[in-house]
Formats: sequence, structure tokens, C-alpha cells
Amino acid sequence: MEYAKLSRNELESIKAELEKEYNELKAKGLKLDMSRGKPSKAQLDLSTDLFNMQLSPEEFMIDGIDARNYGTLSGLPSMRRLFADLLGVKYEETFIGGSASLNLMFDLISKAYTHGLLMSEKPWSQLEKVKFLCPAPGYDRHFAISKSFGMEMIYVPINDDGPDMDMVEELVKDPAVKGMWCVPKYSNPCGIIYSDEVIDRIAALKPAAKDFALMWDNAYCVHEFDGEFIPFRDMLTLCRENGNENMVYEFASTSKITFPGAGVSVMATSEKNMEYLLKILTVQTISYDKLNQLKHFKFFKDKQGVLDHMKKHALLMKPKFDVVIEYLDKYVKPYGVAKYNHPKGGYFVSLDTMEGCAKRTHQLVKEAGVVMTGAGATFPYGNDPKDSNLRIAPSLPPIEELKAAMEVLCVSVKLAAVEKLLG
Amino acid sequence: MEYAKLSRNELESIKAELEKEYNELKAKGLKLDMSRGKPSKAQLDLSTDLFNMQLSPEEFMIDGIDARNYGTLSGLPSMRRLFADLLGVKYEETFIGGSASLNLMFDLISKAYTHGLLMSEKPWSQLEKVKFLCPAPGYDRHFAISKSFGMEMIYVPINDDGPDMDMVEELVKDPAVKGMWCVPKYSNPCGIIYSDEVIDRIAALKPAAKDFALMWDNAYCVHEFDGEFIPFRDMLTLCRENGNENMVYEFASTSKITFPGAGVSVMATSEKNMEYLLKILTVQTISYDKLNQLKHFKFFKDKQGVLDHMKKHALLMKPKFDVVIEYLDKYVKPYGVAKYNHPKGGYFVSLDTMEGCAKRTHQLVKEAGVVMTGAGATFPYGNDPKDSNLRIAPSLPPIEELKAAMEVLCVSVKLAAVEKLLG
Repeated sequence: MEYAKLSRNELESIKAELEKEYNELKAKGLKLDMSRGKPSKAQLDLSTDLFNMQLSPEEFMIDGIDARNYGTLSGLPSMRRLFADLLGVKYEETFIGGSASLNLMFDLISKAYTHGLLMSEKPWSQLEKVKFLCPAPGYDRHFAISKSFGMEMIYVPINDDGPDMDMVEELVKDPAVKGMWCVPKYSNPCGIIYSDEVIDRIAALKPAAKDFALMWDNAYCVHEFDGEFIPFRDMLTLCRENGNENMVYEFASTSKITFPGAGVSVMATSEKNMEYLLKILTVQTISYDKLNQLKHFKFFKDKQGVLDHMKKHALLMKPKFDVVIEYLDKYVKPYGVAKYNHPKGGYFVSLDTMEGCAKRTHQLVKEAGVVMTGAGATFPYGNDPKDSNLRIAPSLPPIEELKAAMEVLCVSVKLAAVEKLLG
Repeated sequence: MEYAKLSRNELESIKAELEKEYNELKAKGLKLDMSRGKPSKAQLDLSTDLFNMQLSPEEFMIDGIDARNYGTLSGLPSMRRLFADLLGVKYEETFIGGSASLNLMFDLISKAYTHGLLMSEKPWSQLEKVKFLCPAPGYDRHFAISKSFGMEMIYVPINDDGPDMDMVEELVKDPAVKGMWCVPKYSNPCGIIYSDEVIDRIAALKPAAKDFALMWDNAYCVHEFDGEFIPFRDMLTLCRENGNENMVYEFASTSKITFPGAGVSVMATSEKNMEYLLKILTVQTISYDKLNQLKHFKFFKDKQGVLDHMKKHALLMKPKFDVVIEYLDKYVKPYGVAKYNHPKGGYFVSLDTMEGCAKRTHQLVKEAGVVMTGAGATFPYGNDPKDSNLRIAPSLPPIEELKAAMEVLCVSVKLAAVEKLLG
């Protein structure tokens, strides 16, 4: 029953059926949102006790510090220890930021431009050209940072085990290539985990640029929703073992653990990098919000506390991903018009339509009242060379709404494919 | 009894007395801190109810937004309205940041370097030279930002009514002069309020640089500790009326209203500037901590709520400033070896020793166990041309410790002066 094997007449008839089905769905006047990886209200409610914590004035003292007052730029020691434990890095390698790890990433790139990084010969603003490797499909906000600073973004395809490393190893021979964006665990949007081989090859890179910045966005480090927590290798150690001690900057946050708008973020990098960056950071701010750090620490206590909490998220997330896969398996798979992954963690299902059909599919779902991230958004310059990738973000809508949205998506994927085949 | 009018013999005898007195104080092995404008524990305790607020899941909804989730980059509308009311600016002109307004200032300057400001012909990183006006004595952290970005800092003396405007008006004719740091109300450290005439002249400046950035740090906008709240003119309106709509960036925060380490900051600037900056800010972060904004809004409700709260701070602050002035009046004034202000708000008393005596005085107090901000720190490049300014920050230590510290300071000021007079 694969569409590609059908005759023109058969396709015409299927098209008519799909159009009828689509128009009926459209007539419902739906208003559904599968656009961003936003936790649902039920997930937010899991952390109500964190917000509602009551402390006596004396309980604000922690690590010998009054968490309410100025100071302690690197963050509360207790929270640093907790993040170090979660990421498998050393305490000294951690820096706690505000509510968004994206902010830490932007700031790091910004400092590379204004001050240069530790290993930079000059600030990037003084260079003719700065290039950055953008494995794709990837996180649109990473690419937005590169674009904002006027970098030349170089597309590197992502395979099931991570970025195409043959290509990466070749590209980093160019001294203008200054870094690479990575989401190594449950990558956004592919949901894959980089393989050991890929990780080893990344850690062993020999970039011509001495100040090559590996942007290791470990956003989904504990975000399993299906099965047990999968330990992940510490990239800081691997880079150090490969003589690339100062190459990697790791990022994470509690945005999708506690509150997306009010979590705690962390950057981990070599002690030398940290020492260098702190000289600039101490000019940038007096300290980040230590009360929020205090509350997070008291709420979790330790790594196990975080993992236990993630189990509660998993109970809410898994049924939604099951719906996505169930619909795709049932209504799309038999017709051979799309491929998709089966992630066990993270926030997305990455859907590859038939080549040349992503924009049209997106248009169809949009016109039927379903908001999805724009086609191409997961690629540098918003340019998907095959026009096939769409990102499904099922976390926010309640199950019934998700089912309605998936119904629209499945019909749209098929309709776009048939239109394409009919030329 | 002014030292300058005494004979050498008389001075020698006084010196011996002062040395004896100083050594006795030193022998006590004091450990006192008057270095930074940090609120005391009693002040922090005033906001315990803010931290301990309890909300049901439904109460996180405000302005139609779930404050827990991603989004609403400019900040919660309720909190923006509150800040707009406090500063006398328009709602549309406000942007709520994280816990430190210093961070907003650094970020703005950083954006001027990487992207340029709205009126910039090119990013400042592409200019041969960037100069910045630094009225001094001023806030050391402002100057640290300028220094970090490699600006040439130009010293402008501060008079009792604000910066020397004849000088400022002359200096801004240089197109390389890109901005000026100002703390217009209860200036750090002088404690003065800029006069109407000075404010009018600043608003009417005609800088050669089209992208001149007036950094209007209104850090002490509601920080009266002696007497009623003094309304302050809205610089955004004044600049607009003078055709300088896009020249001014105003900053404030609740750091010294609620929690220094965990307050809410605000930037106010023209709607055109805001529109321009939001395009970069939306790349920099997803949103700042809206839960902290929510708590602050619910704690204060409105401007009057903030002013009422500041009265509680005043009750704790005024006795400390009274001690400082009492000691200076009693133990220093009669000898004609120092001048100082009598602020009614803010966090500092600015002390001018005899010329050439600030560093020596600082050394003496330090060796007797009292930490003060370094001599010269209040000037660009840490270079006080007269070596006379010291900043007294009396808020943190309890009254008894403050008295002990002031005792040391008074003796040290006199001893340094006598040493100087004896040559």
C-alpha cells in the first residue's frame, strides 16, 4: 500500500479521500499547539512544593552564606555539588547561572566576540569570518545565536549515532571554524543519543582553531521518560584525556525538571576556562539568584532526588509520546511517506516527510488550526535541504488535544505526499 | 583647632597621641566590614514573607500567563506596570530582567559592541576607539564594565548638584564619546541628587555620537532613609522632549528593597530602543524568572506598597547613618582634615580626606582590621587625582560594630592628615 508504488489513478482517488478527511478536520476549527517543548500544567504542578517552601530567617544560611544577600558569583556550593554529581563533572568546573541555560550559551558566545575565549588570539569580533558547525536537524535557538552574531553556519547531517564525524573532522581543519553545537543526549529534535564512537571522535578532534568551542548542551541529561536513567559519559574528562581540556563548555538546567521559566542553569568547563571566564563574569553581575538555588537544593537534596522527580515527569510524558508513535505507526507508516524516531527521552519526535513535503505539510496543519515549529526551523538559516523535517512537541497539550492534533498531522503528511507524487 | 593652623611642635605632639590611640584600637584585633552597600540581616528579614509565600497551582496564573512556564520575555505585565509606576515611565518602555540590574547594564554595553545600538552606524567593536564619561566619585562597578570592554574612561568631576556639565557638554562633541554613567538620585557614593538644572542639561545634550548611551542607573530611586519619598523626574520623557528619545537607558532593581541576591531588575528605554533590543534579547534568553516577578508583585501590589516597605528599611538605616555623621562631626570636623556629605538616602557616605591622604587612611584602617572599599575605587582606573575620596558603607554591620569601625576611621583620617602636614 505504499503510495510510491501506486498508479496515478489510484493516487487521484486517495487524494480525494484525504482531502475530504482533511476538510472535515479543518471544519472543526481546532486550536492546538505542538510547537515548543513546553512542559504541561500537570508537570509544573509536580514542583508546587518547591515554590511553596517555607524557611525561617536562619534557614537562609547555607554553606556559611546568607543566600539572600549579594555575592558568591559561582553559585551556592551545595547546588554546584548537586549539578556536578548530575553531570559527572568536578565541583570546581561548575558555574550556576540564572533561569536559562540558553542565556549562558549566548553570553559565552558574546564573550568570545567581545573579549575572546581563554585560548583566543583575539576576540572573534576582530576576525574576518567565524564559522560554526551546526549538526542538523538541531535546536533552532542554537542556530539563532550563531545567526545573530553573523557567523557562517555550516550544515552537518546528523545520523542515528550523532553528527557525521567524517565531515566534522574534515571541517575543523579550517581555522575559521570556531565551534560546534551539540545536544548529545536525546538530541533536539532527533531524540538520539550520541554513540560512544561519535563521542570519542568529538573529544579527540584536533581543530585548527585553538579556541574551538564545543557547545555541549546537555539539556536532556536526566530526561528519560521510558525506562531507567541512562548514565552519560562526562565530556569534560574525555576532552581532558585527549589534550582538549579547554575545548568543551557543557550546559544544563532544571527548566524541564522544575519550572521552565524559573529554574536554575549550569555551565561546566575546565578550571582554567572557568578562572578566565570568572574575571569577566565578575564584571557582568554580582551574583545570580541564590534563593532559587537554595530552594532547588533543599527540594532535591541530591542526584537521586532529581532522578526520583524525573520519574514523575515520565509518567506524564510517556503516554503522550505513545500517542504520537501510535498515530504515526497506524496512519502514516503503512504508506511509506514518512520516517520518524522512537525516542526514550527528551521532548521531541523528529518526523521526516517525503522529500519536498515538509513545508506543504506544515502549511496544511497550520491551516487546520495546529501550530507546529516551522518547517526548516531545525536547520541553519531555516533551510532544510531536503524540505522533509518536522518537529513534533507533544508535551504541552492534554492527551485528547494531542490526539486531535496528530490526526491532523497524519492526514496532512499523507496529503502532501500524494500531491507531491502527482506532481 | 584646625590641624593646618598648628605649629610643627603641636602637630608632633598630636601625632604621638593619635598613634597611641590608633595602636590601642589596632590591638583589639577588630574584624569589621564597611566595604560594600550590603543590606543587613535585619533588612533581609523584612522580606521573609516574600520568600515564604504559598500559592495554589491556580494562583500561578497572572495576566493570562502561567508564570511557571517559558515565555513572556519582557516580563510579567503586572510587574512591568509596577516598575513603570515607580520610575514614572510608560509600561511599554519597561523590560524586566534577572536579579541584577548590573547584568542588564553589562549586557547593553556588550550588545553595543557585538550588534550596535539602535542608532549605531556599526558595532562598537568595529571602532578604533570608544570613550565613556565617568563622573566621579562614582560606582566602581560601572567603571569596571567600561574597563572590561577596553573603553577609554574620561573623568568628569561631580559637584553637589551632579556632574560638571560645562565639561560634559564640551566632551560630547567628540564622536568617540559614546556614553556616560550616572546615578542621579543618592549617587553612589556622594549621596547627592542631581539638580533640575543638571538633569535638564543632560537631557538636552547634543552628542556628536548618534548612539550616545546615557546609562541612567536609578539604583536608589525609592531609597530615602531620612524623610519622605522624593519624587524624581522621568528622564525618558525629558530626553524625548529634547529630541533625544533614544539616548537614555534607565536601570533599577529591588536588590536593596527585597533580596540583594534574588531581587528583580528593570531596564526602561524608548519603545524604539526596546523594539530593537528585543530582537537580540529573544535570541539571548527565553525568559527571565517570572515566578520571582510574581512573588514581588503579590508582595507589594503597587507603588505605595514599595514605599511603605522602604519605610521599614529607613528605620534600620537611619540610625547607622546617624552614627557615621555623629562620629565624623565629633571626631573629625573640628580639625579641618576632611569633608563629607549628609545624605538622606542611598547607601553611602562619601568622605574626602585631606588631599593625598586617602590611600594612607585606607591602609591605616585596614591594618586595624576594618575593611573599606579601596581608596581610588570610586574613580576610573582606580585613580583618584586628589587621593582624597573614601566610601563609607554603614548598612551591613550592627550599630556597635559600626561605632567601633568609625572610631578606627576617625583616628586614621586624623593620623594620615598629621603625617601629611608634617611631610
